[in-house]
Amino acid sequence: MDTREAVGVQDQVEPGRPQGETPSAGADSAPTGRMPKSYRVRAELEALLSELAEGDPLPSERELALRCGVARETVRQAVRELLVEGRIRRQGRGTVVSRPKMVQPLSLRSYTEGAIKFGRKPGRLLVEWTDIPADADTARDLAVEPGTPVMHLERILLADGERIGLESTWMPLDRFAVLREFYNPETSLYAATRGMGVVYAVATERIETVLASPREAALLECTTALPMLLLHRRSVDGEGVPIERVRSLYRGDRIAFQAKLSDC
Amino acid sequence: MDTREAVGVQDQVEPGRPQGETPSAGADSAPTGRMPKSYRVRAELEALLSELAEGDPLPSERELALRCGVARETVRQAVRELLVEGRIRRQGRGTVVSRPKMVQPLSLRSYTEGAIKFGRKPGRLLVEWTDIPADADTARDLAVEPGTPVMHLERILLADGERIGLESTWMPLDRFAVLREFYNPETSLYAATRGMGVVYAVATERIETVLASPREAALLECTTALPMLLLHRRSVDGEGVPIERVRSLYRGDRIAFQAKLSDC
Repeated sequence: MDTREAVGVQDQVEPGRPQGETPSAGADSAPTGRMPKSYRVRAELEALLSELAEGDPLPSERELALRCGVARETVRQAVRELLVEGRIRRQGRGTVVSRPKMVQPLSLRSYTEGAIKFGRKPGRLLVEWTDIPADADTARDLAVEPGTPVMHLERILLADGERIGLESTWMPLDRFAVLREFYNPETSLYAATRGMGVVYAVATERIETVLASPREAALLECTTALPMLLLHRRSVDGEGVPIERVRSLYRGDRIAFQAKLSDC
Repeated sequence: MDTREAVGVQDQVEPGRPQGETPSAGADSAPTGRMPKSYRVRAELEALLSELAEGDPLPSERELALRCGVARETVRQAVRELLVEGRIRRQGRGTVVSRPKMVQPLSLRSYTEGAIKFGRKPGRLLVEWTDIPADADTARDLAVEPGTPVMHLERILLADGERIGLESTWMPLDRFAVLREFYNPETSLYAATRGMGVVYAVATERIETVLASPREAALLECTTALPMLLLHRRSVDGEGVPIERVRSLYRGDRIAFQAKLSDC
């Protein structure tokens, strides 16, 4: 079975289509014209999934198309949505039911704490740990002059051994060079810095969705067509002094974020 | 120019690839083997973009490939990343520099307030406003019995006239049926309910990335291959009584979300 065909990505990404042109998804009909078929297939798959357990195999697309009485392309679109949502995953030549997506709190707590709370074993693989000159963005976030040497730590984040994210952290070198003396980069960075007496008081976090670059896709063992969640964080201490700039890229099929909003 | 070729989506989505297999992005080399070329092209495009203003045209892919001394496929990947990030957009047969992505605060404030604060004119198009029986998820979130009639409001969210999101809101009918008497669904729902004396005290919001269904893609004038941000919100009032369940789907090339995190 050809995997490209099996997953059925046949649409082009064309986010910048000018208004007024008919989108391809509705080119042959009004927006509601396609509702019943794709809705029916999705509902049928949802019903099927509700009866299956983690790791159970899904019927083939051919079988699903026969069962739903629709074209294979209609089944493929629904299967593709479920793959991206992490509800199902490829295994060998077939497709099986995934374990639930990990949910991380948006908070000042670390990835490590969030993973443990969700019942997954956190881990990290070191990609690089170097001192580099601050570029314009890093200099602005860390309130240093561009070109000032800063510490850069890049790690792959693991949950139960699975590659779930890629995290780059930049920190002022004058304050954190001491980490070299005792910190193991495959453990929690927040635990280490908190151990130094650093207080994370406020962080600003921006969330968007992007595609991985070829390098990032290779490091996360996915393709450049998988939607990712990109988080940018800047943390300051109780005096408003910048502690870190963090860029985290997470596999969209394996993680979701959750925030509790209130008027505090 | 064929748009499919111009955008160059040639990778398959295959999020469920089992661990241990070599991902296609690195199939011909180690993860770092591809770094220099794609990095160089991306850096060249970033430098180019920094000198262009909103609406300025980008050189053709052929020209960019010549300028960077790489294959057109390498340029296509970088262009595709920038399209999904909303940095550039298609216009007619060419590609132009986009306006900056809108940033919405993750807060109890409404979409309307966030858009205005960001300097964009908010708007809404009504898709449907019906009373429907609560399904299992809605019943759980609104603390009613499954099958209880609830109000369902589905609207397209606009920013300066552009379709930016699709929002479905479910609310208890006993408390909110009165909205039918005075509320214009193309205005802010939060403003109307707050006018009724409703206090939004706490909300839980989950963020993930998904692909749009064919119907959603048609309503948002994009394709099913564009990564979207999906938000699920449940809001309760000061007494902990559920006010709403909201499912919002946003075009990933047009919006980002931002949260301020602190230990409050």
